[in-house]
Amino acid sequence: MARIALDAMGGDHAPQAPVAGALEALAELDSSHRVQLVGRRDVIDAELKRQSASAKPPRLEIVEADDVIEMTDKPTAVRGKPNSSMMVGLKLQADGGSDAFVSAGNTGAQMAASMLALRLHAGLKRPAIATIFPTAKQPVVVLDSGANVDCSAEELVHFARLGAVYAEDILGRSNPAVALLSIGEEPEKGNAVTKEAHTMLADSGLNFLGNCEGRDLPAGTCHHGDLDVVVCDGFVGNVVLKFYEAVPPLMVRMLVKEGMDEKLIRTALRQLDYSEHGGAPLLGVKGVSIICHGRSSPAAIKNAIKVAVKSVDSGMNEHIGRRLERTAAGDAA
Amino acid sequence: MARIALDAMGGDHAPQAPVAGALEALAELDSSHRVQLVGRRDVIDAELKRQSASAKPPRLEIVEADDVIEMTDKPTAVRGKPNSSMMVGLKLQADGGSDAFVSAGNTGAQMAASMLALRLHAGLKRPAIATIFPTAKQPVVVLDSGANVDCSAEELVHFARLGAVYAEDILGRSNPAVALLSIGEEPEKGNAVTKEAHTMLADSGLNFLGNCEGRDLPAGTCHHGDLDVVVCDGFVGNVVLKFYEAVPPLMVRMLVKEGMDEKLIRTALRQLDYSEHGGAPLLGVKGVSIICHGRSSPAAIKNAIKVAVKSVDSGMNEHIGRRLERTAAGDAA
Repeated sequence: MARIALDAMGGDHAPQAPVAGALEALAELDSSHRVQLVGRRDVIDAELKRQSASAKPPRLEIVEADDVIEMTDKPTAVRGKPNSSMMVGLKLQADGGSDAFVSAGNTGAQMAASMLALRLHAGLKRPAIATIFPTAKQPVVVLDSGANVDCSAEELVHFARLGAVYAEDILGRSNPAVALLSIGEEPEKGNAVTKEAHTMLADSGLNFLGNCEGRDLPAGTCHHGDLDVVVCDGFVGNVVLKFYEAVPPLMVRMLVKEGMDEKLIRTALRQLDYSEHGGAPLLGVKGVSIICHGRSSPAAIKNAIKVAVKSVDSGMNEHIGRRLERTAAGDAA
Repeated sequence: MARIALDAMGGDHAPQAPVAGALEALAELDSSHRVQLVGRRDVIDAELKRQSASAKPPRLEIVEADDVIEMTDKPTAVRGKPNSSMMVGLKLQADGGSDAFVSAGNTGAQMAASMLALRLHAGLKRPAIATIFPTAKQPVVVLDSGANVDCSAEELVHFARLGAVYAEDILGRSNPAVALLSIGEEPEKGNAVTKEAHTMLADSGLNFLGNCEGRDLPAGTCHHGDLDVVVCDGFVGNVVLKFYEAVPPLMVRMLVKEGMDEKLIRTALRQLDYSEHGGAPLLGVKGVSIICHGRSSPAAIKNAIKVAVKSVDSGMNEHIGRRLERTAAGDAA
């Protein structure tokens, strides 16, 4: 049984997309799960009336929050908006009234609010955003994809631990293979931080494959084996993620221009569609906080809700806590 | 009139691809240009006999070099191999017997050998590799794409100056628009180095647009305008470049699997074919040194030779020298 709080006010298409995503998720999910729409009651009520036959669909509740974090707000704005849908949804989780939070709103603000309301696991300085990259083989977890721009080698090792738990619990990989994104497969290739991180990862107890390169990401495999988790700093991860999102639409346009059938193309490339993979979890906070793209469709929101349910059901957060504690104990020994 | 020295021994398909590329280039180039095949005379002679009707094609000469830099050699190996095709070809240029050097061999070694034989323009610490990225609009110069892994803000500004001259002289852009690759369009977005570089670029006298993001690269345009030059450190540039090279083949496979016509797909996507854009110049050395992909086809080598000719004809190297001197004078004033 999972109670998923969904930010009804967050994202470019709110409240339409979150409300539609919630209804779609409830229709598909096991009946033990519930969705808590967080936001202005009048706005949510009106949208529900517009979209749903029932004014009060079962397993859907409304949690009142009369303020909104705008897309243009600075992350620090969350402190001044305790009644925003983001802060209310996350505090509900911290207080035990909810199990997970999902939002397509302001990413920086969601990070700040998640750290504030849920706090970080011991030993971590910052959370990391884990993104699923579709590949020619299995989907791969890439982190950090934007939460941390200047990372130490130690932080990259933390990302590896967080990503490995995610790959295990959400993607079902056993003993996930972790690689470090660099500019050559050899340990001595890379910048100062990746070279240091390489040495630490080799000694981390993780199933560390070694370095992978940019070309290995779309392939899903590298010189050293198939990939489950790829670690990089949030600057590189964010550039590559945004780049990856932009290439398929460009190629579709080029193919359509040459007279090829758009529907057939989209079917062939559906595997590259981000919305299929739901949101990106913010890993490292004590709880579940799933970040969705600002322009998320109802289907993308639905899939993010499913990822949230899986995170709760698998006990991912507790698993991360145990893993980090064990590491800290090992370091101290 | 340009004399282009071509490394006959460099690359995964040497000597076949360089020799074929040289013959193709000579067939297409204005008759004032010459190609100098550098390498083992017996190997080149045999390959020429195999490929060409004439044992001594016009405007093609052989420059003897009895040693070879292997793909697995460390960059430092160039010092111990003064008779390698790379060192001989570059020294020929330094001594005035050639105008440009092209190789599909060991990239690190070519960088080291180019710095050794041609030396750097005053004020530079390292050269940068400039790569042409195909986009939905015009091709964009991205640098550095792998020569420098840990860059200072000052070096990023150097890259911007080098890239702007390249865009002017080789791509024919007037007053090229330069953007800084980052993780948000606002000046305050980025890591420590890009934030510092942003301030310096705004004050550089270049046509600096501001930050661009990963998604803007395939688009060829960003929030601030169309792109001619995109600046980043060599770690990020290398990851994105290798990533970009790998995405189209993946998508082609997915489309073909769905039953679409491979030939039609390749025609539609030909704009994304790297070999169309020739090699990547190593900018900052006093001379012309063009780096080709190890697995370059004859067509890719041919296009790299054409880029070399254009670099020589436009006086790009002298243009870079003047531009850097003017900047240094401006800084001192």
